[in-house]
This record gives sequence, structure tokens and C-alpha cells, in this order.
Amino acid sequence: VRVSGLTAGAIDRGQYRHFMQKEIFEQPYAISETLEGRVREDRSIVPSILGVLAETVLPQVRAVQIVACGTSYHAGLIARYWMEEIAGIPCLVEVASEYRYRKHVVMADTLFLTLSQSGETADTLAAVEASREERYLARLAVCNVPESSLVRESELVLLTHAGPEIGVASTKAFTTQLVALMQVILILSQYRGVDEQRLRDLRGQLLQLPGLIERTLELDPAIMRMAERFVERGHALFLGRGAFYPVAMEGALKLKEISYIHAEAYPAGELKHGPLALVDADMPVIAVAPNNDMLEKLKSNLEEVRARGGELFVFAETGVALQNGPGMNVIEVPAGAGMLAPVLMTVPLQLLAYHTAVFKGTDVDQPRNLAKSVTVE
Amino acid sequence: VRVSGLTAGAIDRGQYRHFMQKEIFEQPYAISETLEGRVREDRSIVPSILGVLAETVLPQVRAVQIVACGTSYHAGLIARYWMEEIAGIPCLVEVASEYRYRKHVVMADTLFLTLSQSGETADTLAAVEASREERYLARLAVCNVPESSLVRESELVLLTHAGPEIGVASTKAFTTQLVALMQVILILSQYRGVDEQRLRDLRGQLLQLPGLIERTLELDPAIMRMAERFVERGHALFLGRGAFYPVAMEGALKLKEISYIHAEAYPAGELKHGPLALVDADMPVIAVAPNNDMLEKLKSNLEEVRARGGELFVFAETGVALQNGPGMNVIEVPAGAGMLAPVLMTVPLQLLAYHTAVFKGTDVDQPRNLAKSVTVE
Repeated sequence: VRVSGLTAGAIDRGQYRHFMQKEIFEQPYAISETLEGRVREDRSIVPSILGVLAETVLPQVRAVQIVACGTSYHAGLIARYWMEEIAGIPCLVEVASEYRYRKHVVMADTLFLTLSQSGETADTLAAVEASREERYLARLAVCNVPESSLVRESELVLLTHAGPEIGVASTKAFTTQLVALMQVILILSQYRGVDEQRLRDLRGQLLQLPGLIERTLELDPAIMRMAERFVERGHALFLGRGAFYPVAMEGALKLKEISYIHAEAYPAGELKHGPLALVDADMPVIAVAPNNDMLEKLKSNLEEVRARGGELFVFAETGVALQNGPGMNVIEVPAGAGMLAPVLMTVPLQLLAYHTAVFKGTDVDQPRNLAKSVTVE
Repeated sequence: VRVSGLTAGAIDRGQYRHFMQKEIFEQPYAISETLEGRVREDRSIVPSILGVLAETVLPQVRAVQIVACGTSYHAGLIARYWMEEIAGIPCLVEVASEYRYRKHVVMADTLFLTLSQSGETADTLAAVEASREERYLARLAVCNVPESSLVRESELVLLTHAGPEIGVASTKAFTTQLVALMQVILILSQYRGVDEQRLRDLRGQLLQLPGLIERTLELDPAIMRMAERFVERGHALFLGRGAFYPVAMEGALKLKEISYIHAEAYPAGELKHGPLALVDADMPVIAVAPNNDMLEKLKSNLEEVRARGGELFVFAETGVALQNGPGMNVIEVPAGAGMLAPVLMTVPLQLLAYHTAVFKGTDVDQPRNLAKSVTVE
């Protein structure tokens, strides 16, 4: 494991109080590094960034199986929405510890895609190992550590250039994974006759992402004030729809990991099928509200929460007409990220978890019971 | 909606204090009714129980897409483990409110399978409607209400004969759905050259299920004593692996719905990737421990919980060597259900939720904020 070779003290926290805070603020740079040299002047992406076999293997891909754990699993879930919508390729995503121990059926011409910051996650590595006995086209790793076991064991590799991540709760590794996954999806799309203008637009959105994240980070003081209201809370419900449901999952996981608040995410449409019973004045509800086709549906879900006394904390894309008021706290997130809005929306949730943990006085960078890389089962 | 036409008072609770309790205890009968006349003397299952088109459509099935909400979604998740392991058919499962609003890719020769107790669930019906524009082989509904919209809209139907379910928290509808799903899987397997002895064994297991559930229901007094310990709890974590992970999800949902305790389920292998941070003396952990290949892995997950001060409540199949002791409360569930153990293991979790709610004094049959059938979005 490469990262664990660096002790926390060996890398400078600079002006930041915690590594996690530093890593959240490094995201515009980490994403720029992960884009660097990969999008050409004409905005196409060269397949060979995945390795020498890319141009042989990728045109054959007819399905993608993503396997990962924890935060990386959430990145895979977001990629699934993108993959099916943009590339039109069926995409399955599963937690490594489940995938490797069940009898699963592998479809013809499936690419096996793993995600891991460290490249040393035990269950993910074991799944890669087992995949050799199955009829996958090839293994593609999206990973942050070039010398890792996962990179060595995969025929195709796309590195995230997030730099060392010291905080146990992953932040910049997650958002750079999403950027790398979008690159993979765009490359696969190039072989599938997807409308060239659409691909060009998406590549343009990728290039604008660092700037948009810079602007989102300016919300820090407002999010800190919001976080103060979470200190005494024991619970939280995170809601999202579509690709923002895994964003909600990631937001809940961050809060869980470092503030020990029992946060859980639900796709907003499932609220009436059970979790609404939990909603009362003691259950704050955090929602991610992009300005898309689903906005009216989401608003009606939020009204249900409010009608039952639940206090709402909403991260709303500019243009979403939601007003601050009793039981409704809105923070506006810059619009313009297009399909990449899930990456942008993750940032305020990271900051919310961070500030809540700081107010609570927990050990932000080394939360109890958790290790940075889960290298044993 | 047929069921909502019956007021709670119109049907006799008999000796039971609540409809939910009555419905839990009716499960051996409801399952027998759902098996009745469907398994022949030679233990084969007649495909035509799904409708006249069954023998034309089913031999062509090369993938199954399950769409459902809430408890029915959990039944679908369990069926996925069974489908891939027994029939060797790739199976995808998604929440209806997510599925219908995202761009998804339909693979060739896919059967569209919906699950709903009432057959009037709005998102599921809308998904069926939308499926007509896609290239599915056919629609198959597993449903409890013969006159429902879902049944009318589907070319193939398999009814659960659970009888009217009045309690908002679904119990017998869920376990009969699982029995119906196993029947579908066994029929599909008959076309796919699956070893006949294996299929005969599975059909035999189906026939033994009512008797095993009878014996499991005898655990009621012990589970009631356990439930007393949950009354003051605000949280709970449910753990399972493989097909018992959705069982854990269903157990958590029951507790949420009627006792308003914030219960959440995790696949046990994901514990180290985040939720372990939540575990302390205030976070009871409920685990489902079948006596299978994964037992040692699960035990090591449970040890991690115990080492961090978490109190364990384990439902263990007979033969699992776990002893009661400090921080470890074990209730033994009868062995012998084979692949159907997830159905059996659901029963004690239903009873745990029921008794906890009764001790808490909540409205068991009509929990706050929830309706029996979610007929609007």
C-alpha cells in the first residue's frame, strides 16, 4: 500500500486545520490534474490513455460490470446513470464483498471495471482475481495509486491524479474517480455512434468543472453556519433522485464516517414506502435539488417532509425556486455543470460533514473504528 | 384499489391484538395457499400457471428486469440472488421511481417483472406503461389482488394468495411474493437444462416451508423478550450477506415503519467502509446468520462490532455455533429451509419489529405518515 507509507505528519496541511479540509479544497486542482493532457484540442479523448489494449478491447464492449466498496461504490452508481444515458451501454454496479461471493451471470462482451483509491482494497482485489475465471473482455481499474496491486492486476488502467489522500473519509479521490469515469464513458461513446456534438458538449463540461468547484467552495462559510445546527442531531435523512441519489448516499456516508451521526440516504421516490414514518422534528432531511426534469417531483417529496414537521436543508442549483423560510434552509449551488452536476453537488455535502464533525470535536482525519484502506476482509 | 375498499374493522382480527400480528401468524397458511395446485405430483411446476402466453414467452427469456417499490423491492433483491444462482439468468432489480425516470438500456429478450401487493402502486404501474415502448419480451406481474390494474396491464401473472393484508407494514404479502418468485425461477430453470435433481430438491424445499415457518413462529415469546430491549433505542443496524442482505433491509424497514426507530441495513462486508464508525454501546446490531459458506466471514464481522462495544442480536440458523453471552443475544431459527432460508429468516425480524412497536405503544397497523398502497407519486 503506497499511501499508508506516508504518515499524516509527513505531508503538509498548509493553511488547513485538517487533511480532509485541505483535500476538499484541493478538488479543483485534483480534477484539473485528472483532466490534464487527456482532452485534445478538438475535444476528443484518446482511447490509449487507458493503455495499449484499449483500442482493441473498447470497441467490443457491450456491457460494463462495476465492482467497488464504500465511497468508490457510490462513484460507480453515479457512473451507471451516465453510462446508460450517454453511451447506451448496460451497466451493473455491485459492492465487491457481495459480488465476489455470489453466483452471478456474466453477459457476453462485458468490461470488468473496478474503482479504488488505494488499489489495495481486499474485496475488490479478490473480485479482480476471480474475474479471470469468468468470460470478461478485460479488467479496467480506475485508481489513485500507480504502483498498487489493482493497477498491476488490470489490463486497462485510468489513473486519478488526486495526489495523496490522508483523511480517512474520501473526498478528492471520489470526485476525481467521477471525472475519470466520465472520460471512460466518453471514450466508449466514441465507438458507438453517439452524436458528436453531444460528446463535445460533455467534454466541454468536464473542462469547466474545476472552475465551478472553485465557486462552490465559496459556499464554505454558509455551510459552516448550517453545520452548527447539526451538532445536537442524532439522525439525518439524505434524499436525491436519479444520479443524485448516489450523491445523497455519499453525503450520508461522509456524515456517518466523521461525525457519527446516523445518516441514511433514500431515493426520494421511496419516501412514502417507509422512511416517511421516521420523519418528525428530530429528523432533519438534507436534499440535493438539481434544476432538472425531476425538480417538481422532488419538491413534492420535500413538501411531504415539511408537512410532517421535518426540517429541510436543501442544496439547490441556481434557478431552483426554493426560498428560505420556516423549516426550509436553502443553499444555492452554481448552475452550469450539466451532466456533471453530481460531482459539483457532492462538494457542499463534504463540507457539511466536515464542519459538523469539527463542531462535534471528533477526530476528523482519523474517525473511530475506520482505516484508510480496507486491506483485509 | 381493492384492499383499501375493506376498512380495518370489516375483517376479523380474531384472537390477535393487531392485524399485523394476525398476518405474521397467517404466513404458513398464506404460503400453502400460494403453493396450492402449483407443484405437481412429480414435483414439476406447470408454466401455464403464469398464463396462456407462458409457454411461448418463457423459453425465450435471457434476462429479467425486476421493478418494484418498498418491501416488494426487497423481495426482488432476494429473487436476484436466486435467479442468477439457480436459473443462471442475469437479473436486474430497481426501485420503480428510479427506473422509470432514467434512461436505461434494455437487453435483448428481457422479461419485465413487477411486484406489488395491491397492484395499484403508482410508480410500478407507470413503469409497466412505459415498458410498452421498450423492447421487452413481456410483462409478468406477481401480485396479491387479481382485479388490480397491474394484473390487467400484464400479459403474464402469478398471484400470491396471501389474502387481504390490512396492516400497513407488509408481512405475508412479502413472504408469499418470495414463494411466487421461486416458482417463476423454477419454471424458467425447467427450460434451461438445470439439473433436474436440483430443481426437485428446491420444489421439495418450497413444500416444507409452511411447516418450518410454523416452527419459527414458536420463537414468538423469546423474540418478545428481546424486543423489550429495543424500546429505549433510537437506532439499529441490520447486517446480512448475500440473499440475507435484502432480508436485513426488510427487517430494518419493518422496524422503521412501525416503531419509528432509525434502523438501517448494510451488507456485512461493507461495515469497515463506513458504518463501523457508528457502532458504540448506543447502536444495537441485528444480524441474520444462516449456516452457510459465509458464516465465518459473518462471524468475523460480528466480532468487529463486539470489539467496539456494540450489542449484538443474532438470528442464527440451528447449527451456527454462537453462544449467548455479554453483548451477544442469540435466537436460534430452525435449519432445513435450504435456498428458502431468506423467507424463514424474515419471520423473526417481523416479530421483532411488531413487539418493539407494541412496547413503544405506536399505532402498529396504521403507522404515522404511511398509507397501505402508494397510489400517487
